[in-house]
Amino acid sequence: KTPLNLITPTPTIFTEMDTLQHEGGELEWKESARWVKFEEKVEEGGERWSKPHVSTLTLHSLFELRTCLQTGSILLDLEGYSLPQIVDDIVDRQIADGLIPADLKEKISFVLLRKHRHQTKKPIHRSLADIGKKPVSCCVLFVDPAQSRSMNDISDTPSSDQLKNKFMKKIPRDAEASNVLIGEVDFLDKPFVSFVRLAQATTLGGLTEVPVPTRFLFILLGPHGKTKSYNEIGRAIATLMVDDLFSDVAYKARDREDLIAGVDEFLDEVIVLPPGEWDPKIRIEPPKKVPSSVLNLNELGQMNGSAGGAGGGEDEEMPVPHELGEELKFTGRIGGGLWLDIKRKLPWYCSDIYDGFHIQSISAVLFIYLGCITNAITFGGLLGDATDNYQGVMESFLGTALAGTVFCLFGGQPLIILSSTGPILIFEKLLYEFSKNNDIDYMELRLWIGLHSCLQCFLLVVSDASYIIKYMTRFTEEGFSSLISFIFISDAIKKMVGAFKYYPINRGFKPDYITAYKCECIAPDQGESSVLCMFNLTDLDWSQLSKKECVKYGGTLVGNSCKYVPDLALMSFILFFGTYSMTVSLKKFKFSRYFPTKLRKLISDFSIFMSIMAFVGLDMLMGLDTPKLIVPTEFKPTRANRGWIVMPFGKNPWWWYLASFVPALLVTILIFMDQQISAVIVNRKENKLKKGCGYHLDLFWVGVLMAVCSFMGLPWYVAATVISIAHIDSLKMESESSAPGEQPQFLGVREQRLTGILVFVLTGLSIFLAPILQFIPMPVLYGVFLYMGVASLSGIQFWERIKLYLMPAKHQPDFSFLRHVPLRRVHLFTLVQIICLAVLWILKSTFLAIIFPVMILGLMVVRKLLDVMFSQHDLAWLDDILPDKDKKKKEDDKKKMKEKKTPEPESDEEVRGNETPGLETVFLVVVYLIVCQSICCVAPDTNTVCFSSLSHSVAEKALYNTYYSLCPPALQSLSC
Amino acid sequence: KTPLNLITPTPTIFTEMDTLQHEGGELEWKESARWVKFEEKVEEGGERWSKPHVSTLTLHSLFELRTCLQTGSILLDLEGYSLPQIVDDIVDRQIADGLIPADLKEKISFVLLRKHRHQTKKPIHRSLADIGKKPVSCCVLFVDPAQSRSMNDISDTPSSDQLKNKFMKKIPRDAEASNVLIGEVDFLDKPFVSFVRLAQATTLGGLTEVPVPTRFLFILLGPHGKTKSYNEIGRAIATLMVDDLFSDVAYKARDREDLIAGVDEFLDEVIVLPPGEWDPKIRIEPPKKVPSSVLNLNELGQMNGSAGGAGGGEDEEMPVPHELGEELKFTGRIGGGLWLDIKRKLPWYCSDIYDGFHIQSISAVLFIYLGCITNAITFGGLLGDATDNYQGVMESFLGTALAGTVFCLFGGQPLIILSSTGPILIFEKLLYEFSKNNDIDYMELRLWIGLHSCLQCFLLVVSDASYIIKYMTRFTEEGFSSLISFIFISDAIKKMVGAFKYYPINRGFKPDYITAYKCECIAPDQGESSVLCMFNLTDLDWSQLSKKECVKYGGTLVGNSCKYVPDLALMSFILFFGTYSMTVSLKKFKFSRYFPTKLRKLISDFSIFMSIMAFVGLDMLMGLDTPKLIVPTEFKPTRANRGWIVMPFGKNPWWWYLASFVPALLVTILIFMDQQISAVIVNRKENKLKKGCGYHLDLFWVGVLMAVCSFMGLPWYVAATVISIAHIDSLKMESESSAPGEQPQFLGVREQRLTGILVFVLTGLSIFLAPILQFIPMPVLYGVFLYMGVASLSGIQFWERIKLYLMPAKHQPDFSFLRHVPLRRVHLFTLVQIICLAVLWILKSTFLAIIFPVMILGLMVVRKLLDVMFSQHDLAWLDDILPDKDKKKKEDDKKKMKEKKTPEPESDEEVRGNETPGLETVFLVVVYLIVCQSICCVAPDTNTVCFSSLSHSVAEKALYNTYYSLCPPALQSLSC
Repeated sequence: KTPLNLITPTPTIFTEMDTLQHEGGELEWKESARWVKFEEKVEEGGERWSKPHVSTLTLHSLFELRTCLQTGSILLDLEGYSLPQIVDDIVDRQIADGLIPADLKEKISFVLLRKHRHQTKKPIHRSLADIGKKPVSCCVLFVDPAQSRSMNDISDTPSSDQLKNKFMKKIPRDAEASNVLIGEVDFLDKPFVSFVRLAQATTLGGLTEVPVPTRFLFILLGPHGKTKSYNEIGRAIATLMVDDLFSDVAYKARDREDLIAGVDEFLDEVIVLPPGEWDPKIRIEPPKKVPSSVLNLNELGQMNGSAGGAGGGEDEEMPVPHELGEELKFTGRIGGGLWLDIKRKLPWYCSDIYDGFHIQSISAVLFIYLGCITNAITFGGLLGDATDNYQGVMESFLGTALAGTVFCLFGGQPLIILSSTGPILIFEKLLYEFSKNNDIDYMELRLWIGLHSCLQCFLLVVSDASYIIKYMTRFTEEGFSSLISFIFISDAIKKMVGAFKYYPINRGFKPDYITAYKCECIAPDQGESSVLCMFNLTDLDWSQLSKKECVKYGGTLVGNSCKYVPDLALMSFILFFGTYSMTVSLKKFKFSRYFPTKLRKLISDFSIFMSIMAFVGLDMLMGLDTPKLIVPTEFKPTRANRGWIVMPFGKNPWWWYLASFVPALLVTILIFMDQQISAVIVNRKENKLKKGCGYHLDLFWVGVLMAVCSFMGLPWYVAATVISIAHIDSLKMESESSAPGEQPQFLGVREQRLTGILVFVLTGLSIFLAPILQFIPMPVLYGVFLYMGVASLSGIQFWERIKLYLMPAKHQPDFSFLRHVPLRRVHLFTLVQIICLAVLWILKSTFLAIIFPVMILGLMVVRKLLDVMFSQHDLAWLDDILPDKDKKKKEDDKKKMKEKKTPEPESDEEVRGNETPGLETVFLVVVYLIVCQSICCVAPDTNTVCFSSLSHSVAEKALYNTYYSLCPPALQSLSC
Repeated sequence: KTPLNLITPTPTIFTEMDTLQHEGGELEWKESARWVKFEEKVEEGGERWSKPHVSTLTLHSLFELRTCLQTGSILLDLEGYSLPQIVDDIVDRQIADGLIPADLKEKISFVLLRKHRHQTKKPIHRSLADIGKKPVSCCVLFVDPAQSRSMNDISDTPSSDQLKNKFMKKIPRDAEASNVLIGEVDFLDKPFVSFVRLAQATTLGGLTEVPVPTRFLFILLGPHGKTKSYNEIGRAIATLMVDDLFSDVAYKARDREDLIAGVDEFLDEVIVLPPGEWDPKIRIEPPKKVPSSVLNLNELGQMNGSAGGAGGGEDEEMPVPHELGEELKFTGRIGGGLWLDIKRKLPWYCSDIYDGFHIQSISAVLFIYLGCITNAITFGGLLGDATDNYQGVMESFLGTALAGTVFCLFGGQPLIILSSTGPILIFEKLLYEFSKNNDIDYMELRLWIGLHSCLQCFLLVVSDASYIIKYMTRFTEEGFSSLISFIFISDAIKKMVGAFKYYPINRGFKPDYITAYKCECIAPDQGESSVLCMFNLTDLDWSQLSKKECVKYGGTLVGNSCKYVPDLALMSFILFFGTYSMTVSLKKFKFSRYFPTKLRKLISDFSIFMSIMAFVGLDMLMGLDTPKLIVPTEFKPTRANRGWIVMPFGKNPWWWYLASFVPALLVTILIFMDQQISAVIVNRKENKLKKGCGYHLDLFWVGVLMAVCSFMGLPWYVAATVISIAHIDSLKMESESSAPGEQPQFLGVREQRLTGILVFVLTGLSIFLAPILQFIPMPVLYGVFLYMGVASLSGIQFWERIKLYLMPAKHQPDFSFLRHVPLRRVHLFTLVQIICLAVLWILKSTFLAIIFPVMILGLMVVRKLLDVMFSQHDLAWLDDILPDKDKKKKEDDKKKMKEKKTPEPESDEEVRGNETPGLETVFLVVVYLIVCQSICCVAPDTNTVCFSSLSHSVAEKALYNTYYSLCPPALQSLSC
């Protein structure tokens, strides 16, 4: 907002147009419209400002204005310090030029020095006073506090009304005013026109509604009868004054001709609407994007297309290929990437903390915190089941808190949220089963796998291996994140459906036959049960036992209501669906018309929190025994016979320490893919991150945490896509609109470490928050999960393209890619993506879920194959262009070309040239096959091992055995 | 759509712009844009039509076009029968004028006779064929079926491609084409321009994409290098050609100067957007309303306001006062109004039947039918309770069917739906209690009241008393209908809350302690129960009895689950809320982008039916015992000891036959107000009804039905506001948009008698539909009720104004009244309305509900008082002006003034003149007081009777007694 930020040297101009009015027998100037960038007009009877709108002018008025400037007097660089003096000078010049007779001087000066009445905003005092009075008459009778008459037009200091005007903050600080005065008088027989530029911008008392110094004055007085025409001329000059081009001319004009030339230049650029297709009375809303003097070529590429026929595509820019470039350069030095990451992130470290102090952070913390603990509890419970409580909810909480805090403190991209993920869970499950079956100590084996994996991560870090994700284009990214979103959505729904299974509804229930429903605990036969029991069961009052106790003591539940639970399933559904829909509605509230913008934004930011509160409240009100969030309250390992530290030696044979290298390889690949693809999604260009990313640094810390968590027997953590997207979404910043009517722009994300740290510290402290947290019903949290999944789908181009299938062509939104790529090719591209996702979904539903992130490599291969199916032109619009060996050179050329604005040559040969699968494709395919083979291509039963370099001890064979069971039949036959 | 409907004699023009392209080494003309009213352009790579948009031109191109017309050759009224001949003539003229050398003739003719390739819509055949091929290259290799090359440019008959083009139906039948051909060639060194008007519109082979005869040709060929500029000139002439003003000029021009003058005229009218405030690349959506050559003054009044400053309000039209006028004239003759009604409605009678044959009618019938039977059942049940089943559900069904069918067959406004209403219900309740207490035969008394009331209705009809509703302005109307809507909403919600009371939820239920919940029937002590019973209770197996049986036989229900009913309350809520929200969402579906317009409209029309089906399905799936819709299945009176005919004499003393005149008066007022206000709402100007209304005729039939229903012992019926509004809403028609981009306009309502008749016939047949209807759960129907209430609120200005309270001024929508009336006065007006409604609501909640419609008179009095608080100017915008004695004369003056477009004089005196309450106010106040007094102002305990003319028999005193209990304390003390 400071003048330093402006590129153009001329100040912004604020224009106010006042018209001469007879009010109660007195003449006065009344503000009728104002311009910062767009026009705001005083409504006739509404005593209100209209909405800012684009000034629609008539060509006629512009030509009349041109005539006015040709015939009127032009005073450039007038030395002016007060309005009377300036008026004096103006009138004298007119007399000198022979435009008016000398005897009119007094009359004109009198008119020009009348008071100015401005339209200010709050007419609240009056509303009660004037009940029963006609507004027409009351203006005469009372001094109207709603409209401040500046009595001190002569004084140089701004009046208190001017200073109090809140509109001031909408005007840039360096602004200067231009005042347009339009009036009809009875003593003139031809128009009196004067255009004045002051040598110095001067505050001329109450001339302007805000204390902005005046630089320009345009005066048009004329004989009666042409008010409409005069007003239009006034609007025309006012619109010209706020136009970037003309205001520049106005500041620099040396004489009348320069001004006229400026008008002509303006006329040359205007946009004309045919009168038959547009009603001039419609106020045009300000556009979302206004052409700025510094043209952003990329944005142009997204918005162009209206010019030239089908043949005139020369000015259409191809979308600029997305560039991870700088941050993912293959340095060639050992650890070069890591070093660059640290160098890049370190200068931001302080701002990473203090940028977090904002109200929005609170909502983000609450939202993500709830997501994290729900996740921790869910995964904790599942892990507990899978590992006989070696890792349980307690470990999950502790691990989440530890890993998250460390990562947010030191990671390269602190917006990423670490969490347990599905593939890791499946791996743990298999590993535990394998250990149990082979009498191997699970925790020790796991520790060694973790250590190996950590080392492998370090290797990947120092070798700049994250370079590979340059091949991850929008196709891969969106495929992956859509899939994760679908999993979130389906999990949330599955859990909800689970409630109906867990709390079965008695469908045949007839309220009248309530007497027939009971459930009784029947004592077992003496003979059967006496074996187990230490105390006398016959003493027990069986009818007093609860369901669990009954089962525990060997009783039998008899009755037709035993297996039903009333109300809970339906209540859970109401809580689940209610939370979801309330969150969605409140999120949209930002775009409603109600309440001031700030309050609306607050409601929208806190929508999830408010929904949770509302439905927790409803749940408490109903008092039903819905399943609640239960966090552990005591700080001790879930399983009694394990401590907080896992010892590395002693329990397993020594060769296991080496052999665990192989499963570690799988874990490393899992982690690498899962982590880096989430990072790519978070670092997406659309998010406008400014502090850079740190792929290598991220991976480094994930590796470190692997080792630490393995030592402490905690679960392993990796970036969670959906929660990270939710984190980003909850921290998005928009510009406060400056000029009235300008649309707020998405500025970027509040990049900082504070929210992440707070989330994980809170997660750690949840053990103490248990008394509060226990009021939150689980269905409410599942509702939040559903929302997260659905929300992360929005804004994904893939999802938009799927929707296109259901829309007839003429109703489709005006996406830029639709203007450039034939619809059927868009559909084909989408279809390929859908098929890929369907295949992944099916694989995911099998045990192959363990290699799920590896399958992303498959997506990348498919993307490479798309180069053969689609032209580079289409792909550039639908996806990004894959990097090329000789890309660097080309890109430089391209940049040069763009500067010259010459069209990019796109010949058939070039396109064909790209078709031959490059070295990269071969590389990718080989990598993918190796990975698949290393997992699957071992056939212990036939004793054939593909890669002889691998040692095959008995134990390893057993391990392979496990892996082999995961191998898809197709690959099994393919493999060796 | 026929040419006869057009006012302007010149045909509509369809413009096609083709540009010259080198395609595969060959020259051809390719369609690049077309205009019916708005521009549609062929997207560069999308091979699709852009959305229709307003053509934004540059001023530059318009001036260049002007130059072109000045220098090029103009051939007016050329005799042309084929393209080659026309091209010959054009080139010859150019050579003759010395514009081109003669040796270019062949080259130019060659270029101009190249094939024309049009953009047709369905490129489906290609989508699979070209996988793996570059679209760029395939155009060369294959003939592209997507774009039809018209090989028969020379032939005179339209090609099959042209005939198959579906776009034809978007073009008016009388349309003529203008073809714009723009191309670059290498043999010219200065532009070749030709403007041709043919003497007769001729189909020139494949020149145009549709078989529309060509009238105009504009050809611009020029040297290479200025494609952009040429294209812009082409767009300029094309836009001019579809402009109403210029096309008129083009048809009538006698020479070049006329055309130039036409361009200048166009230039004078254009709207100019400043380049700094608008990006020319943004496509402007067609406006909702396009200025037509025949200006609608009223619409102008609603849309104006952008011109002139605060002072320039001369061109702002006041809204035209709403005119019931014609139909509600006080004829002065006996039964004159009724006669006029019949004369007005009779000619429409046939169309009233056949206009009903439309798919929309089916959805309307289903919707209203469900509303009606729900209403019949609800009111039937309540009436049954109130009258000890003298009138029950069966009577309610029969009465609804009878009264509805008769009214829809013969009524003045068949869109009105008759139904039982609240005030009548309360009246019946009081009457029954009174009869029982005084040993009077209820049915006979009711018959006489009905007969008296019928007579009184006839009196009102013949005296043209419906005239009074001229005083019912928007204020009264909207107040009443809002109130009725609120009652609907609150009733629906109350019923829902009732479900929670009727099916109490066991809140403390712990699933684990299911064993502790039971409900047993305990046999009563022998001593107590033996008194009642005829058979041996000890033989009874008490534990086998149902709840009802247990209570019936005097048993006691013991247990902690007896008073709870599981699941049903929550399930009811889900059904209720689900039906409501699904209906709302589906209704909105019309505005989504998915599916073709027709399907969307169908979904929107059938939204209620589909929601009901969906939730009936869900309910069946869950199989819970939710309360269902039960209709009577046997055709017999609900109470055994009454027949279908009530005898008028014999049971009560004779003087009752006369005395029932007094209660009949109240009933008459109830009915009159309730009926006529609903009729006013239905006949609202906004509904654009074309077949006129029939207030007198309506009242006549309501009177007849009163008598008939009284004789048959059926409930009395009167117009039901909310259901009638729903009926109207479900029959709204919109125009199919003709020119692409034109908004569909609301055309009016499908006015017919068929839907109403069907609804009531179905209601009568419901007795046979019981097996189907019994699947519908009541909560679903309450959801429909809620929707009806909420839907009837939308579109009410009062409701929009209430919402304004919550909006900051700058976010408020651009309502016309906000442009003209200060916000605080708008708020004040709304506040008065809110207070009125609150008072009415409170009164309604007491026993005063019986005089509820009478209170509308109170609203009218309040409205009259508002004349003192608000200026006529404000009221004209917020409400309507009340009719005045000397209104007629003024209105005539006003009409004349409007024709002259002179401003309406609005002086202080006139405003003040209106302030003195006129005779009407006095009249209204007197009527209101009389009504209040006649109800309340009798104090039997003090033996003072205000109106001595009233006879006071003992029985009447007793009746007064009842009335007196309804009198608000304030009025009691006020009265005498």
